[in-house]
Amino acid sequence: MEHENGLTLRFAEVGDVSTILGFIRSLAAYEKLAHEVEADEDSLRATLFGARPAAEVILAELDGEAAGFALYFHNYSTFLARPGLYLEDLFVEPELRGRGIGRRLLARLAAIAVDRGCGRFEWSVLDWNEPAIGFYENLGAAAMDEWTVFRMTGEALQELAAED
Amino acid sequence: MEHENGLTLRFAEVGDVSTILGFIRSLAAYEKLAHEVEADEDSLRATLFGARPAAEVILAELDGEAAGFALYFHNYSTFLARPGLYLEDLFVEPELRGRGIGRRLLARLAAIAVDRGCGRFEWSVLDWNEPAIGFYENLGAAAMDEWTVFRMTGEALQELAAED
Repeated sequence: MEHENGLTLRFAEVGDVSTILGFIRSLAAYEKLAHEVEADEDSLRATLFGARPAAEVILAELDGEAAGFALYFHNYSTFLARPGLYLEDLFVEPELRGRGIGRRLLARLAAIAVDRGCGRFEWSVLDWNEPAIGFYENLGAAAMDEWTVFRMTGEALQELAAED
Repeated sequence: MEHENGLTLRFAEVGDVSTILGFIRSLAAYEKLAHEVEADEDSLRATLFGARPAAEVILAELDGEAAGFALYFHNYSTFLARPGLYLEDLFVEPELRGRGIGRRLLARLAAIAVDRGCGRFEWSVLDWNEPAIGFYENLGAAAMDEWTVFRMTGEALQELAAED
């Protein structure tokens, strides 16, 4: 859907893998987590564009140039017995911020969520990211402050698996 | 896999829907969120046992009686370019706690995660649930304290979707 300002949103395709990897690296750098990025083009291609894609990607293009992206998947609420939409990554090129591109991406995901019968649209924010938090609260999103995510990886995960 | 103590873990089937709904309601009551449960047998049947299940369920049975459950789905890490395993609900009947049933369920999920090439095993905990937090830290899980989940639902979600 082309808009008057030259901004287009579309589903990413396999040919967009290098663009997606660039955005993932840029987002990680902004989050001060660049050292955690293990993704490469092959692993993104296999997991996002194989027989059973693990997530979906919307690309934002401004006058035909990649400007940002949103990567999401479906989670599930047992209380609602309905799927939800979980936004894993949202990124807009720094020099293109302030034009509403992020909001357009979020609106597209909200529309996909409503269209697919999702009860919730969720994402995670780093606590120090005040500009993002203000933006999200302004949209009517609520901080789930009373919940904390726990994560197992590496050796701890292998050891627990070995108990099975 | 039957164990010497009479505990069996198996994938839930469509005939287990009423058992699953009972566990969801019991867990919600424990979390003081019973008013949020909209799920019923029909919606669970449609979303968990239809053509495209939105989540998977492992049931724990003690001497043939349902003792607890774990419901999970796959999320995705862009940094790893790998799926993860996300535990949405874990519940063990109060009178059967302290026998390691919860740990057996977690070990089974960890094994599924490793088997499917997942880089992470994650779940969320209410901040006041000290017994659970101690248990999870003891397993080697790390609290992702610096992240907060934001959630849009209802009218705010509909309004954002309408911008698309």
